Amino acid sequence: MRGVFVSDRLDMEAHFGDAFRTALPNDPMSIHGFAADPQTIVFAVAWHPPADGFTAYSGLRLIASIASGTDNIFACPSLPVGVPVIRMRDLGQASTASQFVLWHVLYWHRRFDLFQQQQREQRWSRLPQKSASETSVGVLGLGHIGARVATDLAANGFRTIGYRRSATTDTCNGMPVSTGVAGLEHLLGTSDIVVCALPLTPDTRGILNNATFSKMKRGSFLIHVGRGEQLIEADLLAALERGQISGASLDVFAVEPLPLGHPFWSHPQVIVTPHNASDVRPQVVAETVIAEMQRIVSGRRPINAVDPTLGY
Amino acid sequence: MRGVFVSDRLDMEAHFGDAFRTALPNDPMSIHGFAADPQTIVFAVAWHPPADGFTAYSGLRLIASIASGTDNIFACPSLPVGVPVIRMRDLGQASTASQFVLWHVLYWHRRFDLFQQQQREQRWSRLPQKSASETSVGVLGLGHIGARVATDLAANGFRTIGYRRSATTDTCNGMPVSTGVAGLEHLLGTSDIVVCALPLTPDTRGILNNATFSKMKRGSFLIHVGRGEQLIEADLLAALERGQISGASLDVFAVEPLPLGHPFWSHPQVIVTPHNASDVRPQVVAETVIAEMQRIVSGRRPINAVDPTLGY
Repeated sequence: MRGVFVSDRLDMEAHFGDAFRTALPNDPMSIHGFAADPQTIVFAVAWHPPADGFTAYSGLRLIASIASGTDNIFACPSLPVGVPVIRMRDLGQASTASQFVLWHVLYWHRRFDLFQQQQREQRWSRLPQKSASETSVGVLGLGHIGARVATDLAANGFRTIGYRRSATTDTCNGMPVSTGVAGLEHLLGTSDIVVCALPLTPDTRGILNNATFSKMKRGSFLIHVGRGEQLIEADLLAALERGQISGASLDVFAVEPLPLGHPFWSHPQVIVTPHNASDVRPQVVAETVIAEMQRIVSGRRPINAVDPTLGY
Repeated sequence: MRGVFVSDRLDMEAHFGDAFRTALPNDPMSIHGFAADPQTIVFAVAWHPPADGFTAYSGLRLIASIASGTDNIFACPSLPVGVPVIRMRDLGQASTASQFVLWHVLYWHRRFDLFQQQQREQRWSRLPQKSASETSVGVLGLGHIGARVATDLAANGFRTIGYRRSATTDTCNGMPVSTGVAGLEHLLGTSDIVVCALPLTPDTRGILNNATFSKMKRGSFLIHVGRGEQLIEADLLAALERGQISGASLDVFAVEPLPLGHPFWSHPQVIVTPHNASDVRPQVVAETVIAEMQRIVSGRRPINAVDPTLGY
């Protein structure tokens, strides 16, 4: 069962080599561009594949993203038609992402930005102590990660509402869920803090734009752990400038790494982190890929296949 | 039912005047030094009373701290013998304090100190994503606030152990609890993050000292929301200097406000906050005092009396 790592952004061998050697000791992974007999390769583990990344592998039966997102794979021109694309669902990853978001929510809720500013100025001045129940947090996207984020925020006492595009069910672990255009507007207009955990789809590309910010409460906060392509960066800078948004925590960017000199780096009301909210653990990637291949070989459908028309 | 505010540190009228006017509309509170007929005053609401703060009030039946701590009241030379001293227990306060501590635990656990340093340097470098279950947090003191802190940390997935002086019960909401000298050493030696929420007593004065830091894991973190008098500040600076402690969050200090130029203000591994983890809400102070006075008038003991031999 031969596989290949396909990426022009990440050193996949360095990240995942050990995990696949442990899980597949008799079939060492190839690296794209260096695979002997590419037609005998049956699965690809991919992240930002080059345009011709899949052309050489005529025997592919599975393509796996190393993350929750698959947008960069569906954007690849050489993606073969009819080969299932799977994404990862790692409970540990969702939990890690959720704690990352919780820290940012508490940061803005308790105004640790002001505490840190005061410390720099050696100024002792107490601030109001809001309880979590006085703060509304809206979570955009209730997938694998967003649902966990929203559940944990609610468990920590925040007034939490979630938003998902489709009205498949109208609660998420007992939490209220908004859907549709009206639901999104309701969430934006009532949340003190908005968390974006949406997948990247044609509908969500550029969704964090001036129109969206104008629907948010004046002085509210944004925490973005979705995809860089969802944020119109100039619109956020303008919304911060006019006080419509009071602060933003950004983990994802249109261009990564965020270029030197980008205004986000030095903005006093922006926290920049290096796309570090959470990763799927390497052993989960290896075990998921092998389990899905075993399903395919035995004639079953993969569990984690992504619907190409939805993008998640 | 006449009462008096007694403090030389806090403008009690500004903080609590409205709450007592609402709760006791017919008996306006006096301010120490301005009370007519002081012998008719039956209760005092106190915080850092001056040395002669209680001398004039010969009819006192209750003295109330405005906070969880009463050390500053028991230290007052004019404290009358036999008059019960009560402290506040505010569930909202415990929750507010707990969220404050949770933010600091997540800060050190996920190394947001390094993320913030990287942002200042415009440097994009990912950091390991530890899960909460990989981090042990020890909570010193399982009173009103410490118990809530420990419970919330455990609920957020941290490996949490608590410490209390006395072995009254050996669990706290299902969490393991250490007691005694051996229990304290076990907690210090196994915790990645130590939270101090102890009351100030003769036993805990100066407890955060060089000997204690030397028993902690090398490179661990301290979060201090107890009392300033518990920390030997020079010992903490030395422990940070030699890397025994990697970082500290300090909300309480030997001298408050923390003086300009104090090395904590500008220390890169210290977070200073202005004794702001939590306050009892003013209406809780007023309602507690009145309910306790009603018990005393009807011949019962106050519920929140502090044992003067224990100090809590």
